[in-house]
Amino acid sequence: MSKIAIIMGSQLDLETVKETIDLLKEFRVSFEVKVLSAHRTPKELAEYVESAPQKGVKVFIAAAGGAAALAGVVASHSTLPVIGIPIETKSLKGLDSLLSTVQMPAGIPVATMAIGKSGARNAAIFALEILGTTDKKIQLTLMAYKRKMRNKIKKIKIKI
Amino acid sequence: MSKIAIIMGSQLDLETVKETIDLLKEFRVSFEVKVLSAHRTPKELAEYVESAPQKGVKVFIAAAGGAAALAGVVASHSTLPVIGIPIETKSLKGLDSLLSTVQMPAGIPVATMAIGKSGARNAAIFALEILGTTDKKIQLTLMAYKRKMRNKIKKIKIKI
Amino acid sequence: MSKIAIIMGSQLDLETVKETIDLLKEFRVSFEVKVLSAHRTPKELAEYVESAPQKGVKVFIAAAGGAAALAGVVASHSTLPVIGIPIETKSLKGLDSLLSTVQMPAGIPVATMAIGKSGARNAAIFALEILGTTDKKIQLTLMAYKRKMRNKIKKIKIKI
Amino acid sequence: MSKIAIIMGSQLDLETVKETIDLLKEFRVSFEVKVLSAHRTPKELAEYVESAPQKGVKVFIAAAGGAAALAGVVASHSTLPVIGIPIETKSLKGLDSLLSTVQMPAGIPVATMAIGKSGARNAAIFALEILGTTDKKIQLTLMAYKRKMRNKIKKIKIKI
Amino acid sequence: MSKIAIIMGSQLDLETVKETIDLLKEFRVSFEVKVLSAHRTPKELAEYVESAPQKGVKVFIAAAGGAAALAGVVASHSTLPVIGIPIETKSLKGLDSLLSTVQMPAGIPVATMAIGKSGARNAAIFALEILGTTDKKIQLTLMAYKRKMRNKIKKIKIKI
Amino acid sequence: MSKIAIIMGSQLDLETVKETIDLLKEFRVSFEVKVLSAHRTPKELAEYVESAPQKGVKVFIAAAGGAAALAGVVASHSTLPVIGIPIETKSLKGLDSLLSTVQMPAGIPVATMAIGKSGARNAAIFALEILGTTDKKIQLTLMAYKRKMRNKIKKIKIKI
Amino acid sequence: MSKIAIIMGSQLDLETVKETIDLLKEFRVSFEVKVLSAHRTPKELAEYVESAPQKGVKVFIAAAGGAAALAGVVASHSTLPVIGIPIETKSLKGLDSLLSTVQMPAGIPVATMAIGKSGARNAAIFALEILGTTDKKIQLTLMAYKRKMRNKIKKIKIKI
Amino acid sequence: MSKIAIIMGSQLDLETVKETIDLLKEFRVSFEVKVLSAHRTPKELAEYVESAPQKGVKVFIAAAGGAAALAGVVASHSTLPVIGIPIETKSLKGLDSLLSTVQMPAGIPVATMAIGKSGARNAAIFALEILGTTDKKIQLTLMAYKRKMRNKIKKIKIKI
Repeated sequence: MSKIAIIMGSQLDLETVKETIDLLKEFRVSFEVKVLSAHRTPKELAEYVESAPQKGVKVFIAAAGGAAALAGVVASHSTLPVIGIPIETKSLKGLDSLLSTVQMPAGIPVATMAIGKSGARNAAIFALEILGTTDKKIQLTLMAYKRKMRNKIKKIKIKI
Repeated sequence: MSKIAIIMGSQLDLETVKETIDLLKEFRVSFEVKVLSAHRTPKELAEYVESAPQKGVKVFIAAAGGAAALAGVVASHSTLPVIGIPIETKSLKGLDSLLSTVQMPAGIPVATMAIGKSGARNAAIFALEILGTTDKKIQLTLMAYKRKMRNKIKKIKIKI
Repeated sequence: MSKIAIIMGSQLDLETVKETIDLLKEFRVSFEVKVLSAHRTPKELAEYVESAPQKGVKVFIAAAGGAAALAGVVASHSTLPVIGIPIETKSLKGLDSLLSTVQMPAGIPVATMAIGKSGARNAAIFALEILGTTDKKIQLTLMAYKRKMRNKIKKIKIKI
Repeated sequence: MSKIAIIMGSQLDLETVKETIDLLKEFRVSFEVKVLSAHRTPKELAEYVESAPQKGVKVFIAAAGGAAALAGVVASHSTLPVIGIPIETKSLKGLDSLLSTVQMPAGIPVATMAIGKSGARNAAIFALEILGTTDKKIQLTLMAYKRKMRNKIKKIKIKI
Repeated sequence: MSKIAIIMGSQLDLETVKETIDLLKEFRVSFEVKVLSAHRTPKELAEYVESAPQKGVKVFIAAAGGAAALAGVVASHSTLPVIGIPIETKSLKGLDSLLSTVQMPAGIPVATMAIGKSGARNAAIFALEILGTTDKKIQLTLMAYKRKMRNKIKKIKIKI
Repeated sequence: MSKIAIIMGSQLDLETVKETIDLLKEFRVSFEVKVLSAHRTPKELAEYVESAPQKGVKVFIAAAGGAAALAGVVASHSTLPVIGIPIETKSLKGLDSLLSTVQMPAGIPVATMAIGKSGARNAAIFALEILGTTDKKIQLTLMAYKRKMRNKIKKIKIKI
Repeated sequence: MSKIAIIMGSQLDLETVKETIDLLKEFRVSFEVKVLSAHRTPKELAEYVESAPQKGVKVFIAAAGGAAALAGVVASHSTLPVIGIPIETKSLKGLDSLLSTVQMPAGIPVATMAIGKSGARNAAIFALEILGTTDKKIQLTLMAYKRKMRNKIKKIKIKI
Repeated sequence: MSKIAIIMGSQLDLETVKETIDLLKEFRVSFEVKVLSAHRTPKELAEYVESAPQKGVKVFIAAAGGAAALAGVVASHSTLPVIGIPIETKSLKGLDSLLSTVQMPAGIPVATMAIGKSGARNAAIFALEILGTTDKKIQLTLMAYKRKMRNKIKKIKIKI
């Protein structure tokens, strides 16, 4: 049973989405990963999104680049929270992916993260924050993660 | 029997799409108009697009704003040509609509027109140009239209 | 006891945030609203964010414009999910607010919505989607809302 | 006899246009390729565009970068459909090419594809979609191509 | 005999080009004004540009908006200096016009002015600066104009 | 006792901030350097900024990238001048950092420098200009630095 | 004797600069205001900037729009701190003014504020922060101002 | 005696300006090259620009990057035509240089070329076009250059 379903629009997005996967593994939360495209496999995508809740999925993470319709289309088929990762693109550097993901019409929200790898890491954390709203153990994991980040910074000494 | 199917993502887009409608009427080509949203009515949209060819539809025109997934989603359900009109938006002035419509991944093209009303007029003309590739009468209509435009400009006298 | 805490950086943002408030009222979820600035009341903001969980807050919604640090600073003080609304600005039309809200560093996510009023409405819906992951009643409310949207569109007839 | 005429503004654009050429070869449609510039060979361009219909050309594909006037100028000399490929540029990454190609005035449409290689591939597919509106065999080719894309994605398994 | 030929792509551009006209009248230099479009009257444009030198034209001023090919196309038909005025547009505010005018390929320069009315005034001044390189009287006119501007500023007193 | 306190949001910013450090060393002004994040160590940051004046700090320099809240948050805790360095980012090239740093709301200024290394060098010089308003020796250092820059340029000979 | 010299590039900028003036009056600091243009009165500007220190000027504030060279040119003639206000422009909304003011080369810093009126208010505050580094009374004024801002926000009650 | 004076803001700009130099050599027109900065050597720049006409200079070419004030400042000191080359920059890719060069206020035009090397080549050609308005020999050189470009393109054969 997977609590989090990660969908990416193309296998090429794995380089970015790897950040999400690695962090979720580190957090030891159950998840699954699919390559499904809003444009190339619309039906398979719709079916997957609609069947996910029965499998225990609570949160979707969708990563896509360019005219990035993926996260929005996932959101169109579900009332579960959808987190969008705008993939960095070659020409417009992910500005196209960002605007295609974030500028959703009223009624169908997509929780958009930063462009690229920072966004991919934050998608994992945000998915946990959602689960953490009712799961004390996950809350504690997040607090520990935050403390670790803080301590790591506090230890840095810059030699002038 | 409609040769051209116009789809808009929201009733608010009619102000822009009116330009397409008026021009198609002037050209006396059969067409139909639907409000269907990639995000709010994904199934109705898929069904409509898939059933359109049987009704004689040869070309789709799709108008949407913001994270404008509409034209791309229409294209995902069809192998007929899809023309996209990026609607001008309040904050980003249609740059979001343009990038969401034009930056399609390889495999699923959307023929993107200019932002707003010029694009809406051109969508009508481009749909006719497609039909005109095998319809002599439409070709002649387009040539006459072009001649009229040219003559209109030639008659202008600027008084200094 | 409020499940959702809305924070805006300036009283002027209320025009936009009203959309969030109205929708949450319609959904009959408990929430509270504060004006607190990352730049003008950093301490009061930190105290408020840190004390919110005890009051039952599960989700933050933060709205700010320009160099919009608010949502990020809320996220820095909490491990609850933070939803960011980029307010439309006079000169750069909210592009500044969007980038300041969405481009968060790895470790501190902000779930960014669209610029302006669409984003404000979606913040309410997304907050409910989060609560809905473990609250069946809220899930049903969301499904009903989605159905209503769909039916509204399906009824539209465009007269040519 | 060539059904599709590809024009590029500079020999340097061949790196991108190769994607169009390769796909058209794969689809076994007749086409021809020319280097002609709106700015450096305006007369040769006009003559070529005007004489193309007699040779059986049904669709133009025009690729250019920077102040990319090419597709628009081709469209000014013809009533056949013109597909524009905005070439990625060194400084502005193709945003200049995109806006110069897509923002056409009412009356003279250019069907604009994505910036760079994705756009070049899609230009080939869109040209076929146009021909396919009245050519059953091409329609079937496109459907097969779409099925192949879909199956390719469906086979991908991501190992976590 | 006109030394300066002003061409605008659409009659709507006259609101901006009026600034050029008024300044040239003030400077008492001979000029003529035409509405000719790179996209709607390509042949008439080519003929006009090619015949202009015989009539004594020394400098072209071309004003256009959106995918503003006009100045570049004028430059393609001439070796006289071409000054481009990017017209402010509704959606993209003239950024499209600017990039379409200024990003010319090596070999065919367009001397681009600022977007809108400031650019229109400067086109007149720059045309005079070109003529002034070999016309002492015009040089003196320009010096007087510059002195007048300077004196106007020097007289301003801001009351605090 | 340090007159200038440099804060960077991440150790990765040191590559840029090194320019500031090297110049301050060259100018022989006392300074200190800290890694403190508005998002990961908000409390440590607040404490550091509030305690700095007692240690003799007169000017803050804050460097951060992306949703760069750092300089603004430093300014929120102090009435000393805060100089912001927008770090160049991978996807948006520092446009996000620039807008997040410069677009501060009325009441809380941040003196923003150019993106990247030029900005980092200028932050050092501007800090000195502030100290120089009441320190004659620093004024003379700056004048000497300016003279040196000027002489360096004057000596350049370009061989044609 | 004026401690702060405000320079604006055009009388039209007064609408924005009024915010600076009003705040400096409120703070009761001596200042003077000049209209001087980097482009129209370069010599008068150079003379004014160079003679200002003798009159007791410690800080320059320069406001300009478009290709906003003013603040940079003031900085080229002085080693006093220069604060730049990018004026909002008609077409590009001040993005041109911002980039022309902030992207200074290494060696000649300009402390850039936000575009428009917020930036104009912040220029006044930042000038005081500079003077406040060695003037206890001004420091206290700034602290009081900050306290007032904070209290104003704390009093706001949003009725739901 | 040099007819064309090339000024660059930094020695680093030579990589781009080399294109201008090489073309002017090819055209065998007299010219001179200087490194002079609007920000680092404002006086030397003013003196050079003001003394240039006596030496026979008819046209200025100014190349600068970032907050590129150079061309505008040259124009402020002269009534000769000034051609601006926006240098490509590391972070913003020359968009900053372009806007700082082209968005000149009414009264002080700068003839702006494309960003980077294309612009540098075109600056040489445009300078010749100016001189060619009254110099038959230069006109013929330009016509020959144009013919050569055209023939070069006409000879290209693309093997499919």
